[in-house]
This record gives sequence, structure tokens and C-alpha cells, in this order.
Amino acid sequence: MSLSSMRMDEIIALKEETERRYQQFKEKGLKLDMSRGKPGADQLDLSMKVLDAISSPDDYNSESGFDCRNYGILDGIPEAKRLFSEIMEVSPDNVIVGGNSSLNMMFDIIAGAMTHGFIKDKPLMKEEKVKFLCPSPGYDRHFSICQYFGIEMIPVKMTSTGPDMDAIEELVASDACIKGIWCVPKYSNPDGITYSDETVIRFSKLKPAAPDFRIFWDNAYAVHDLTDTPDKLLNIIDLCRENGNEDMPVVFTSTSKISFPGAGVAALASSINNINRIKKRLSMQTIGPDKLNQLRHARYFKNLEGIKAHMKLHADILRPKFEIVLTTLQKELGDLDIAEWNTPKGGYFLSVNTPVGCAKRVVELCSEAGVTLTPAGATYPLGKDPEDKNIRIAPTYPPVSELALAIELFCICIKKAAIEKLLGERA
Amino acid sequence: MSLSSMRMDEIIALKEETERRYQQFKEKGLKLDMSRGKPGADQLDLSMKVLDAISSPDDYNSESGFDCRNYGILDGIPEAKRLFSEIMEVSPDNVIVGGNSSLNMMFDIIAGAMTHGFIKDKPLMKEEKVKFLCPSPGYDRHFSICQYFGIEMIPVKMTSTGPDMDAIEELVASDACIKGIWCVPKYSNPDGITYSDETVIRFSKLKPAAPDFRIFWDNAYAVHDLTDTPDKLLNIIDLCRENGNEDMPVVFTSTSKISFPGAGVAALASSINNINRIKKRLSMQTIGPDKLNQLRHARYFKNLEGIKAHMKLHADILRPKFEIVLTTLQKELGDLDIAEWNTPKGGYFLSVNTPVGCAKRVVELCSEAGVTLTPAGATYPLGKDPEDKNIRIAPTYPPVSELALAIELFCICIKKAAIEKLLGERA
Repeated sequence: MSLSSMRMDEIIALKEETERRYQQFKEKGLKLDMSRGKPGADQLDLSMKVLDAISSPDDYNSESGFDCRNYGILDGIPEAKRLFSEIMEVSPDNVIVGGNSSLNMMFDIIAGAMTHGFIKDKPLMKEEKVKFLCPSPGYDRHFSICQYFGIEMIPVKMTSTGPDMDAIEELVASDACIKGIWCVPKYSNPDGITYSDETVIRFSKLKPAAPDFRIFWDNAYAVHDLTDTPDKLLNIIDLCRENGNEDMPVVFTSTSKISFPGAGVAALASSINNINRIKKRLSMQTIGPDKLNQLRHARYFKNLEGIKAHMKLHADILRPKFEIVLTTLQKELGDLDIAEWNTPKGGYFLSVNTPVGCAKRVVELCSEAGVTLTPAGATYPLGKDPEDKNIRIAPTYPPVSELALAIELFCICIKKAAIEKLLGERA
Repeated sequence: MSLSSMRMDEIIALKEETERRYQQFKEKGLKLDMSRGKPGADQLDLSMKVLDAISSPDDYNSESGFDCRNYGILDGIPEAKRLFSEIMEVSPDNVIVGGNSSLNMMFDIIAGAMTHGFIKDKPLMKEEKVKFLCPSPGYDRHFSICQYFGIEMIPVKMTSTGPDMDAIEELVASDACIKGIWCVPKYSNPDGITYSDETVIRFSKLKPAAPDFRIFWDNAYAVHDLTDTPDKLLNIIDLCRENGNEDMPVVFTSTSKISFPGAGVAALASSINNINRIKKRLSMQTIGPDKLNQLRHARYFKNLEGIKAHMKLHADILRPKFEIVLTTLQKELGDLDIAEWNTPKGGYFLSVNTPVGCAKRVVELCSEAGVTLTPAGATYPLGKDPEDKNIRIAPTYPPVSELALAIELFCICIKKAAIEKLLGERA
């Protein structure tokens, strides 16, 4: 029965039970962390052989014959470019394989745009105003980059098929200050939503007022499926080319959650125009990326099949974690109509919407009982959730036993906050 | 006997002999490269065990207990910070250990200064004009960064004790547009000169008109000694602190030419103010550097003693290469008074000054006979050597046998160019 349709005596009974359970949790003295999208140590163990993929003595040459131990090769060794071209479904010519961080590649492209522009002679620093569209809830680190560079962020509502395309189409067509949009198109952070075919097609057909409008397509979870019937994401690069928007999208991905966060390999894909522009800047920045780490990864994973087989091992570890979260949410909150969430088929997150005005309170209650959540609001630009209702759940890092406790407490806290609100017990 | 004091018949005889030798070289069909400051494959072989310093199964924790395979730690793991603090002779608190490229760190600090300033609210993009001092000859990639950002470069003469400090003191004191200077203070690129004590002390006492003036102290060859009596460089960080210029210097170094170019570890050292400012930007750029590569290096080299022992192995390989170059220069050109060079006690380069107006011609002649040199002019801002006389010699990459041929040809080409000039045979 939904909370709002309960009789007062039923509400009071639920309140008392919830209070009792909350106090019991407090007495446990928990210290659990459900805040961060990190793989667990057991997942990292899956990739240890990557480190042995080159060791001493060995052949350290790329398949092109280039000694990967020495200087050179700005855009990645051929076998790494091929591997990422398979993951990103593009030609190797459209790929730059970089260092250990796709976030750094995104930051750097925006840094480059500030001083030099996404296109020639259009440095964003010289513009009166620069705006980015920010589908929200979204990834806080995307928003931080905008904040750092003084870029105004315009939140765009997320729907079950991706961001609100009506709003996006209208905004980019009417405002030439809008220079970009952040997207996590597959298993989005934090909702776990994959953009529908229609959404991707509409993206590819955008008619932005700004000639230098760019789609930052952060496909961080491209191969991070949890089930045998994974979501399929259409190819933004192909579609944009077909629709005369070849230079619009820049696609990012990495092995951070395939091999090692921080010690993996990141890559981007874009039009030849964009690739050449990025390479020109790269040639000023560095003599080249860590090619030995690229070689390790290319030799170990070999190709997309190798990656997919490896990701099944990750899925076997992660599936029970998502299941305990989803099962508990359903069991505790399924009937009460006080919370909403998706059922992601991959990725690293899901998000729960509490009643309006309750997210901060839930995070606070969890914290007081020893469970750390991502701060409420973190999934919105400037950390401000206008309805104070979205909470990101990161179920990957804690062991299942701890996660079961943490998510049970989380549900109790949502009930407690919802009842407080209903009874007008909070200011 | 010097060329200029020869009788005409002697000059003609030398010319004929030089022509004959040059033709003989051309007939050999050489294809040699003396252009790039790369270690040879035998040097890379010295470091193969670095790759095995962590392998599977192992303990992947930093000494602080942090799992280096996972996200986190923005400024480097403690053992890597300590190792670099020993190399750079500073406290670990003053160190940030980064990714694989110190050049990238330099680029990034300037990119950050363009949009956000070296100090708060002083973005260089908002300044009418920004200038950097460029001791010349110097490192072309430093100059390229300035060129990329539209920073005006003011060449400063190099002397045998470092850059011309009279000029630098006067320039920085009188022009608030001058925001920085590039230095390679030990075994400078390309001269192989180490800044004298007096030079470093005078740097530390500079009184720049610009409050945000920065010294880019690229100590790329900090431990790259060739002899048992290495040059000693004073500590710019300590001296600047003592002289009230704590925030002025930023010191860079890397293991690129200790372990692997491209797969090594880079670091910087500066004041706590600067470190905090850089870390704030870093926190927007990345979740952290490749800590597994830091762990590999820290475990293998352990400390400065370990680094020094390793560098002796490099020196054993490099010493004969520098010796064949210096011996040949002396033997071929020592008496003719048509070329000058230094005798570096370390580093990766030396440079030769030809008669004025002959450098381009020498590089061209070498190229026609199959030996690639660094382009003439590359050691000056915008690639323009005002006297067209400086040529960088990079003796490290070719095997000694090839190097002997290449440097002999180089000397022949200098003679040929000098005689052409003397006889007025070139326009």
C-alpha cells in the first residue's frame, strides 16, 4: 500500500517500526561506504595477468616494429588503436589512444577549447558567455570541469530514454552560447539508463546555432554489461556523419573499469578534422603516451571478443551486488510509492529518487548510522538538486554482505524521511 | 692552423681533400640519425627489471596500505614522492608525482596559467601581452609551448655559466609582461652546460616586476652524469625560499631517461602554495596518476642511491658515444678555428657552433650524404637562429660505429661549408 493512502494508525505503526529498525542499525556501529564507483579488489584480481602481458625478457615491439620502450607515436600503437576502434565501433584512423584517464582527455579538450577553440580562431575564453547542457542527474566530474572553466551549466531533465531531446533541440538551435553537452549514453551515471535509438538519432540530427557545438559522449560503460541481453547503443559517430554533423561528437572510453582504474588505458574517437586538431595540440604536450601499458593491454585482451569474455567475469561479481540492492529496494519500498529507481542492465550505478526534499535528509540519516553515500545534490550542476530528491547508489565496491546491510539501512532512512515529511515533522 | 690564417693554396688543398672525402661518404649511401635525444636500445635493456618489479601475484599496496590498482591518490604514492624528493632535494610535501611526461606537466601548468593564472585572478589570457625569457640555444619543445599559446619569446644569450644573468635581471625587473623563463639548468639542452653557483643564486634573488613570474626549472638531467666528477647544481627551491621568492620556481624531472621514455614517471617540485594550486586543478583533471607504474619504479629503484647506481650503467654506455664525438670534433676541427663546442659531463646533448651563416648549410650537406641532424635553428625560439650557427648533436641513439661515421661526416660538412663561405662560393 502506498504511504499516502495509509490510515494514520498504519502510518504511526510504520513509523514506530522504522524508528526501531533505525535505532538497531545505529547500535551496530557500521562503517560502510556506498559512495564511490570503484571496482572491488576481487574485480581487480581478474586483471592481474595484464601486468604480466609484457615482462622481462620479452619482445617490446609493437606489431609495427616500433620499440614501445622508447619515445614516439603520439596517438597510440596500432594494436591499441585497433582494440579501441572495436570497442568504439569506428575506424582506427578516428581513434587516439592516450594515457590512463579519459576524464583527463575530456578536461584537456575543453581546456584546449578555452584557449584555442573547438574550431580555428574561436577560443571560448574570448566569448562573452559559454554554456554547456548538462543532462541531470549526471556525472559530477563533468560538471566540475564546467565549473572550473566558468562555463554556465544548463540542466536538462533525464528521462527513461535519455535526456529530454525536445528541450535539447530547442536550446541548441536557439542559443549560440551553448557549445557542448555532457552525455553518458550507455548505463548512464547515475541512472543506469541507455539512450534509446530515437534519442541517439535525434542527437545526430541536431542543428546547433553554434558552429562549434560539441557532444561529449562519455561512453565509460561501453562494454560493462551485467546481463546476456545487454542494452544496445547506436553509433553516434556514424549517425552524425550521415547527418552532416561529422565534427560534432567526441567519444571517450577507457579500460579503467575493465583492467585497472588509474592504471588502464583511455581513448577517444572523433572525426578526422577533430583528431588532427587534437593531435596538433598533443604534439605540443607530450612526446607520446605510455606505450608499454598500451602494449600490455592490447596483448592481453587482443580484441573485442577478449574484452567481452573478460567483462563476463566482472559481471559475475557485480550482478549479485546490483541484485541485492534492487531486491531490497523492491522489498522495502516497492509498495509504498515513496521512491523510484531504474533497473540498470550494466554500468556502475543506479540512482534512487526519494520524495521531493528528502534526499539530503536520507544521506544525513545514513551517515549518522555509519553508511556513507554520495552527497545528495552531487548528481546536479553545482551540487544543487532543485528538488532535493536524487541519490546515487554505487554498489560495486563493498562486499555483498556489507552492501546488504547498507541498502537495508538506506531503505529504512527513506521511509523515515518520507514519514517525517508526511507528518510535517521537519521544518 | 686556423682556416683564416691559411694561405690560398693550403685552403684549396683542404677544399679538395674535403670534397673528396664528402663524395666518398655520399657513395656509402649512409642512413644515420643523430637528431634525437633518445636512449639506445641497450640503455632500455638496463631497465627491464622495472617491468617485473610488480607482477602477478604480488602485493600491490603502497607502503601506506593503499591498493595501487584502484582509483585515488592525486599527487603520487608516498614511496614515489620520497624517491623524487631525494632526486629533487626537497621535502616530499613539495612534490607531485604525475604521469609519464614532465613536458606534459610543464604544458599543463602554462595552460592552467592561461585560463586561471599562476596566481589567483591573473589569467594570462586576460593580459595584453605575455612574454617568456628563452635562454638560447635551448629546448625546442619549451619554445613550442610558448608559440602554441601566443607567448612572445625573448631570447637570452647562453654563456658558459648559464644564461646571461645581467640581461635576465634587467628584463624581469623592467617588464611586468615577462611571466616566466625556461631553464634546463644541468647539462643544458643543447649545450651541456650546468648553471654555475653564481647563476643559480642570482636566479633566486631576481626581483621581477610581475608578481606572477615563474622559473620553469626543467631538471631533466638531474642524475644523468657521465663522469665520476659530475657537475653540481645548487638547489633553486631552497635558495628562492631563503630569498623571499618561494613561489617563483617550479622544478621538473622524470625517469624518462632513467627507465623508459614514455613509460617512466614524471614529477614536479614547488612551494606549498604552488603545489596546492596545481593539486586543485589536478582534482578537476583526473582521479589520479598511474600508481602501478609509480610502484614499479619506487620498488625497483628504492632511493637515490639505487638511481645513481643505475645511472652509472647508463653512463658506461653513453661515455664512449660522447667520447667519439668529442675526439672526432677535436681531431677534425680542433686547429681550424671554425667551430666551437663544450665538453659536457652529462646529459644527452652537445651543440656545435659553426661559422656564422653555416648551420643550415651543414645540416643540408649532412642530409644529402645520409645523416639526419636536428634542423638548424631548432634550438632557438620560432626556429630562428639569428646567426645561423648552432647545431644540436644528439649522440645517444646510434651505435658507436654509426656515430663515428656520422660525426666524421658532420666535421667534413662543417669544413666544406666554412670553406665555401670563406671563398664566397655561396650566395
